[in-house]
Amino acid sequence: MKTTGGNEGAKQNAGEAAASLAEDGMTVGLGTGSTAAHAIRALEQRVGEGLDIRGIPTSYQSADLAREAGISLVTLDDATPDLAIDGADQVAEFDLIKGGGGAHTREKLVVSAAARFVVVADPSKEAAVLDRPVPLEILSTARTPVSAAVRNLGGEPALRAAERKDGPIVTDNGNLILDCDFGRIEEPADLADALSGIPGVIEHGLFVGLADEIYVGTDEGVEERSR
Amino acid sequence: MKTTGGNEGAKQNAGEAAASLAEDGMTVGLGTGSTAAHAIRALEQRVGEGLDIRGIPTSYQSADLAREAGISLVTLDDATPDLAIDGADQVAEFDLIKGGGGAHTREKLVVSAAARFVVVADPSKEAAVLDRPVPLEILSTARTPVSAAVRNLGGEPALRAAERKDGPIVTDNGNLILDCDFGRIEEPADLADALSGIPGVIEHGLFVGLADEIYVGTDEGVEERSR
Repeated sequence: MKTTGGNEGAKQNAGEAAASLAEDGMTVGLGTGSTAAHAIRALEQRVGEGLDIRGIPTSYQSADLAREAGISLVTLDDATPDLAIDGADQVAEFDLIKGGGGAHTREKLVVSAAARFVVVADPSKEAAVLDRPVPLEILSTARTPVSAAVRNLGGEPALRAAERKDGPIVTDNGNLILDCDFGRIEEPADLADALSGIPGVIEHGLFVGLADEIYVGTDEGVEERSR
Repeated sequence: MKTTGGNEGAKQNAGEAAASLAEDGMTVGLGTGSTAAHAIRALEQRVGEGLDIRGIPTSYQSADLAREAGISLVTLDDATPDLAIDGADQVAEFDLIKGGGGAHTREKLVVSAAARFVVVADPSKEAAVLDRPVPLEILSTARTPVSAAVRNLGGEPALRAAERKDGPIVTDNGNLILDCDFGRIEEPADLADALSGIPGVIEHGLFVGLADEIYVGTDEGVEERSR
């Protein structure tokens, strides 16, 4: 379910535009994935030029990139993000599907806490209606009952297999991922509520009502949409 | 927040009555806590007399009691519970607050999957309106934003401290517990939905619409209520 493809130049344009929003003294939520990584690298350059920020990572990956970038890391117990920058697997208007990288639980925690959440994407992520499988982070003991509940909601669940270990992937939080295909998601807010209520679901990858702005990188520059 | 008190004889009467519902071939969800422990001990006696059941535990505690009782343990991936027996910290009609023992996440998973969920309690647990603090199992990185979200809902959160280790208790799943005082909970279903939607909340201790029967033990016997 990890999204691949998309034009690196377009992703870089989106990441750089979002990174330009960081100001001295800010705490910045640092997303996970290839487009968010471009934003972190753009922040690295600005930090090298004297920008004074702190970062809140959303995964091992973003923490490591931030350390390489010389960004001081703090937690949500230390500071509230003024700005969060993160990618998405699919974007329809301001609703997102995230979790292709298995980090959507910490990502949702950080972007929800942020004063401003800017999504960075490339045109391959845009859709009229969300229709990618929705990743659910679930307790390892819950896969059978959660799968049954997902089928009751009209979805088809698949346990995400690992490639560099045997068996399923295990998240940074120590849990499993079920990728759940619901086809076209006409009412994402309703599905989000239903998924949140399933026992054993730690967090689902629908991000509804959280994004403030969408920056879509292109070869030429960036298209910005705000609510 | 661990509930104590209540009459052991009353708890035993409730546990024994619920245990009498188990039949040969059944898979039984085994709750956590002092009253559920009476049910497991009553099952032990019946297993000794030849009853053939399997158990799905909800905690280290109930797994250990079941092993001592000679009950074969299986998981939710192996079988669906025909019957689940569990206690509660507070009961109002058929709505419950659970989680005083820190096991409400696995308990909710198991009782939700069960064909029949029987709550075992004593009169000290009964209330007209739920008003005990609601335990939330949360990611360790989430305590500050979840606390803010709880306050937004009119609650007062308190991180549950451990007594036999320094710092907070850590659950069987490796997470923290926030005990959240909302005063009188007039609309538990609405609060349950709101709590489920908070990023970083793994599971809350409101059990709404799950209990099929309530067995309240007394010195004399058991009062049974069913929907």
